[in-house]
Amino acid sequence: MGDLSMLSLNTATAKYASLAECASACAEAGLGWIGPWRNRIQEVGSADAAKIISAVGLSVSTVCRGGFITATEPDSRSRAIVENTRAIEEAEALGARELVMVVGGLPAGDKNLVSARERVAQRLGDLVPIAHNHGVRLALEPMHPLFTADRGVLTTIGQSLDIAEQFEPEEVGVVIDTYHIWWDPDAHESIERAGHQGRISTYQICDWILPLTANTLNSRGLPGDGYIDFPTITRWVSEAGYTGPVEVEIFNENLWIQPVRQIVDAISARYVDLVGPYL
Amino acid sequence: MGDLSMLSLNTATAKYASLAECASACAEAGLGWIGPWRNRIQEVGSADAAKIISAVGLSVSTVCRGGFITATEPDSRSRAIVENTRAIEEAEALGARELVMVVGGLPAGDKNLVSARERVAQRLGDLVPIAHNHGVRLALEPMHPLFTADRGVLTTIGQSLDIAEQFEPEEVGVVIDTYHIWWDPDAHESIERAGHQGRISTYQICDWILPLTANTLNSRGLPGDGYIDFPTITRWVSEAGYTGPVEVEIFNENLWIQPVRQIVDAISARYVDLVGPYL
Repeated sequence: MGDLSMLSLNTATAKYASLAECASACAEAGLGWIGPWRNRIQEVGSADAAKIISAVGLSVSTVCRGGFITATEPDSRSRAIVENTRAIEEAEALGARELVMVVGGLPAGDKNLVSARERVAQRLGDLVPIAHNHGVRLALEPMHPLFTADRGVLTTIGQSLDIAEQFEPEEVGVVIDTYHIWWDPDAHESIERAGHQGRISTYQICDWILPLTANTLNSRGLPGDGYIDFPTITRWVSEAGYTGPVEVEIFNENLWIQPVRQIVDAISARYVDLVGPYL
Repeated sequence: MGDLSMLSLNTATAKYASLAECASACAEAGLGWIGPWRNRIQEVGSADAAKIISAVGLSVSTVCRGGFITATEPDSRSRAIVENTRAIEEAEALGARELVMVVGGLPAGDKNLVSARERVAQRLGDLVPIAHNHGVRLALEPMHPLFTADRGVLTTIGQSLDIAEQFEPEEVGVVIDTYHIWWDPDAHESIERAGHQGRISTYQICDWILPLTANTLNSRGLPGDGYIDFPTITRWVSEAGYTGPVEVEIFNENLWIQPVRQIVDAISARYVDLVGPYL
């Protein structure tokens, strides 16, 4: 169905499949990459996860996810360092260059968004030396403002770059996920800026669909089913110098219930139609 | 309960009350202002609406709303000019200086967000001379990215100012609505910029609450019930030089079913607690 060698399945797109099932389906369909979530890695252990993936000839685009580093309490901060260190080690074990960081929302009862964002930069300062030692880059994920309160206080690529720039390009990058950034009036300019700095850690694709489902976290669509202009954004990413894999990460109950190979075929068709030609 | 002379009830906050009921409740409670939606004006006609409001000693903070100017078809564009001209005339009839503009989302089947935003500037070019002749300012409302696809392609104050600056400060302003802009990492800087240009048309308050309701349009809370830091944002608006009324616009089914005076008392209490002291 076309060249899928730069396509990656993020395992959250096939939520109910094991890592082995995801890997087999990707390899059979001709994909070159996979982006495992940590729950899929931990089910089998890092060493076996690495074997499962390399046995079928896939490479790892990203590991999802570290983060949740906005806490104020010393105890919570310590736990976040421990947990992120584990995530870094898992990424290293899988040969993943990029660890996606969902930075977290406002701590319970705390409305100081400015301070929460400052703590993200502070915790990165703690984590970057650790990640550096393991050869892993921390990929800051700006999230749709739908999630600012409870999941990710970073909302734009530009804001994420302002923080990333406090570190070396091989230490901290940014995630370009169409779902999270398509609305941003500065998206084109910020993608250029990220690309010129060599900080695009991954390009993830997912569509904005309406109406939102009751669980807004899972209200995401296959590329082409919603409002996002994939050819245009893909061109921006490509022109910014990004040559890495394109990862598909979709949270959608109706997609999840399908057999994993059917999911892989569905994302492959949309990729070939809306993204591949514009890389 | 404190000084309410600069508080304004946007009539959408009391969706099921008539203009006369809203006006009476505001006056009895000691509010100085009201912000009527066009449906409430049209029910009685502009002339009577003006009388109802002035009879109880209120002033009009804004008229809501004009806009929906992103269409591509010549017919739709013409209809938008006609409809907005009516809105401008209604605002003038009520002595309202500010007409809130919800600019509209993507036209059906059209995913070109960049072009849709360009058309907003073009249609403003058509409308500004009309509004100018009627002594009305067009107040661009940046909307939460939740609504980019279907309601408002302007998402940030900064982006709205970029368009507003193509016109005189007395011709095009911007709306600062906490619900729509609280997540913006550039909110403080953009509020300063808007204030220094004399372009803050209105300051509207409403809280971001979770989980979102099934109809995401109506998923808004009383100040204090959600995640927004009202003292901080109010201070930013005040320090930017804004001295106008503070309008409360909340779409919430549970609030709407209450008697209008109860609604007015509820917003007054929150205003006195979270906003008034920081002006």
